[in-house]
Amino acid sequence: MRAVDIIIKKRRGFQLTKEEIHFIIDGYVKGEIPDYQVSALLMAICFQGLNKEEQVNLTMEMLHSGEQIDLSSIQGVCVDKHSTGGVGDKTTLVIAPIIAACGLKIAKMSGRGLGHTGGTLDKLESIPGFQIAISPQDFLKQVQEIGIAVVGQTANITPADKKLYALRDVTGTIDSIGLIAGSVMSKKLASGAHSILLDVKVGDGAFMQTLKDARILARAMVDIGNSCGRKTVAMLTDMDQPLGEAVGNSIEVIEVIETLKGRGPKDFTALCREICTEMLLMTNFAKNKTEAKQMITRVLQDGSAMEKLRQMIIYQGGNPEVINNYQLFAQAKHIIKVKSKESGYIKKIRTHSIGDAAMILGAGRKTKDDIIDPSVGIKVIVKVGQLVEKGDTLAELYANGKEEARALEITEQAFEITDEIVNKNKIVLDIIK
Amino acid sequence: MRAVDIIIKKRRGFQLTKEEIHFIIDGYVKGEIPDYQVSALLMAICFQGLNKEEQVNLTMEMLHSGEQIDLSSIQGVCVDKHSTGGVGDKTTLVIAPIIAACGLKIAKMSGRGLGHTGGTLDKLESIPGFQIAISPQDFLKQVQEIGIAVVGQTANITPADKKLYALRDVTGTIDSIGLIAGSVMSKKLASGAHSILLDVKVGDGAFMQTLKDARILARAMVDIGNSCGRKTVAMLTDMDQPLGEAVGNSIEVIEVIETLKGRGPKDFTALCREICTEMLLMTNFAKNKTEAKQMITRVLQDGSAMEKLRQMIIYQGGNPEVINNYQLFAQAKHIIKVKSKESGYIKKIRTHSIGDAAMILGAGRKTKDDIIDPSVGIKVIVKVGQLVEKGDTLAELYANGKEEARALEITEQAFEITDEIVNKNKIVLDIIK
Repeated sequence: MRAVDIIIKKRRGFQLTKEEIHFIIDGYVKGEIPDYQVSALLMAICFQGLNKEEQVNLTMEMLHSGEQIDLSSIQGVCVDKHSTGGVGDKTTLVIAPIIAACGLKIAKMSGRGLGHTGGTLDKLESIPGFQIAISPQDFLKQVQEIGIAVVGQTANITPADKKLYALRDVTGTIDSIGLIAGSVMSKKLASGAHSILLDVKVGDGAFMQTLKDARILARAMVDIGNSCGRKTVAMLTDMDQPLGEAVGNSIEVIEVIETLKGRGPKDFTALCREICTEMLLMTNFAKNKTEAKQMITRVLQDGSAMEKLRQMIIYQGGNPEVINNYQLFAQAKHIIKVKSKESGYIKKIRTHSIGDAAMILGAGRKTKDDIIDPSVGIKVIVKVGQLVEKGDTLAELYANGKEEARALEITEQAFEITDEIVNKNKIVLDIIK
Repeated sequence: MRAVDIIIKKRRGFQLTKEEIHFIIDGYVKGEIPDYQVSALLMAICFQGLNKEEQVNLTMEMLHSGEQIDLSSIQGVCVDKHSTGGVGDKTTLVIAPIIAACGLKIAKMSGRGLGHTGGTLDKLESIPGFQIAISPQDFLKQVQEIGIAVVGQTANITPADKKLYALRDVTGTIDSIGLIAGSVMSKKLASGAHSILLDVKVGDGAFMQTLKDARILARAMVDIGNSCGRKTVAMLTDMDQPLGEAVGNSIEVIEVIETLKGRGPKDFTALCREICTEMLLMTNFAKNKTEAKQMITRVLQDGSAMEKLRQMIIYQGGNPEVINNYQLFAQAKHIIKVKSKESGYIKKIRTHSIGDAAMILGAGRKTKDDIIDPSVGIKVIVKVGQLVEKGDTLAELYANGKEEARALEITEQAFEITDEIVNKNKIVLDIIK
C-alpha cells in the first residue's frame, strides 16, 4: 500500500477502505507518512467528502490511536455533552449541575477557547483556586462521589486527531463535515460516556453558518455515535446572537450562578432546560417531557443543582464562596456602556464580531499562547427583535485598558437596528436522533 | 500574507493574484513555506484549476526562480521542441538534424526517461562516448558552429519547478492542466528559444489519454508561450501505438539513423516531416507547406541532415562510425519473436504496456536510481489496422536475461486482434496555434 495511491483514489472520488484509512492514520501517528501527503489527502477529502462508512472507520481509527477513559467503575448512567462552540456558550456549567442533581453522572473533559469562541476550562479557571488538571483516579472518584466533574484531558486520548487537527489548521482543511464529525466523535467516544448530547450551534457566531450545513454535520455525528454503540442525540441551537448576556470568563461564570439561582437570562435558561430535558429523556431518566421539566424545576428550586456546582468547585480546589460573593472574582477596571444611537428594533447582532471584540479585550486567545484576562468581556444586554430607544444600553464592555477603543468600535458596529418589527430568534432549531 | 489564507482562497475557487503566487513559490523555494501547505494548495488547484492569468503568473514565477539560458549570442533563429512523452518517441533526434540542415538553430536541453516513457538523453548515451553534460559555453559554441546541440541541463533552471514536481509526484497532484502547463512552459521559456514547437502526445501510451484533455493542455501551453512573447505552436499527435518500431535506446537510435537515410518506419517518418514543416513555417523559413516539404526532402536526400547528426555526435564526444556500423552499439544477447496466435486485423496495441515491458527488460527506469541497459528494448513490427496471419511476427524483444518471461507475457497481451477491418490511426490529430 502506498500513500500516494490512496490520495489519488480519494481525489478521483472513490471510497477508501478500512485498511486504507488505517494505513494513513496509523502511519501518520507513527511518523511514517509525512505531513505533505496527509495534507494533500485532507484537501482531496474536503472536495470529495467521506461517506458514512469512511466516517465511522476514520473515527474508530482515531479513537484507537490513543487511550480511552474507562467509566465502567462508576455506578449509574454516565452522560457527556459537546458543543461545537459559540459566543457566550457557558451551557455546560449549568446543565452539568442540573443533570447531576437529577441523578445522572457527568464525567466531562472540556477544551479551551480559540479565536472568537470561548472555552469551558478558561471559564472555570476564573474561579479562584479552581483546578482543571485532575488525575484519572481523582476524576473517576469525583464523578462516583458527587456525580459531576468538568476537567481538562486526563489521558492521552486521540493523538491522531490532535496531530491531524494541527495540520488541518494550517492547510485550510478545517471545514469538512466528515473530518469535523470524525474529530468530535473520536474524542467523545474516547471519553467513555454511553449517552452523548451534541449541541450544534448554528449562525453567525458558530462554525456552521447555515441550518442546512449544521443539519448535515449533526446527522453525520449522530450516525457515527449510534454506529459505534453510543446513544447520540444532536440539538441544533441558535448562535445568531450571543447566548445569554455575558461573553467572557468571570462574567460568564457569574451568569451561570445567577441562572442556577433562577435569575439567568431568559434565552440561556430556556436552552439549558431544553438540553437537560433531552438528556433526561435519552437516558430514560424521565418518562416524558413533562416529567423531565418537573425534575429540572425541582433541582433548581430546592438548591440541589447549585449544591452540585458548589461540590464540584470544592472537589476541584476552588473557592465555593464565589457563589455568594461575586467580588471574589477578578474585577475589570472599566465598565464601558455601548448606547444605541437610534431607536428601533434590533435586527441583527454580529455574534462573531462580539466574540472577536471580547477576545481583543483579553477574554480569549488569538493564538494558542495568548494569556487570558478572566475579568474582561462583554455583556450584550439586548436580543434580536427587541425594541430599543435611542440612548438605551446595548452592551457593556468589561475592560482593563487593553485595546478598548478597537473593541468598542467593533461592538458598536455589531448591532443593526431597523424600523420594522423583527421576529425573535428560536432557540432550539431542530433535534436529530 | 499567510499561506493558509491563500490555500483557503483557492479551495473556494477564487483567482490567486500575482503577489499571492509569488508569495507561495518564492517562499517555497526559500524553505519558508513548508511542503504540507504547498501540497494542500496543489490539491486545491487540482480541483479548482488555474485560469490563464494564474497559469502565466505561475510560469513566470517558476521561470524567475532560477537561471535562464541566454541565446542572444547565437546568430540566426533558435527553435526548441518539446514532447509530453510517449513510447518509442525518438522524434527529436530526427527533426533536430533536419531543421539544422535547413538553417534553423536548435539548442535543446532534453530529459531522461521515467516509467513507461523513454528519455532523449538516455537514447543519446547509447552512442559510445556520447556526452550529454556540456558546459554552457561549449553548448552555445556548438549551436553557433553547427546549429544543433541536444544536451542535459547546462544551468540551474526553474528550481521551483523541480521542487514542486517532486512534491506533486508523491501527493497525487501530477495531472492538473494548469500545473503541467506551468511546469513545461517555465522550462521552455528558461531554455531561451524564441520559437517553441510542442508535441502533445495523445492516447494509451501518453500522459493525456483523450483528445479533449490534450487539446485543453495544448491550448494552455500555447497561450502561456504566446503571452510571454514566444511564438508557440502545439501539435497533437497519436500515441495509441508506439511511434515507429523501436522502443528502447540503441535500437531507437538505429531507427533514427535509418530514418535519416530514408529507410525509417512510415508513420515515424511522416510525423518527423510534419513537425519539421510546422517549425519551418512558424519561423518563416518556408513560405508555405509545399516549400517546407521540398526543403525537408532535399536535406534528407542530399545527406545534409545526416551530416548534422554526425557533426553533433563528433562535437559531443561520440563515435560517428555508429552511423555506418550498427555493431558498434551494445548488442542484446537474445532476440525473442512474439508471434501472432490468430489471423485478423490489429485492433489495439496497448502502448503503455509496451513501454512497461521495455522498462522491465532494462530499457527504462522504474525509479530514478535504476540503471539503463542500452541494448535492450522491443521492436513492434505491426501497426493498428494491419492485417496479420497466424504465426506472423508482431514484435521482437531485445533482451539480456532480465525478466524476459514477464516482459514477453506483457508484450503478448498488448496486442488485440479482430476479424473486422480496423481504421489506421491518423498521426497528426490537430494543430493549436
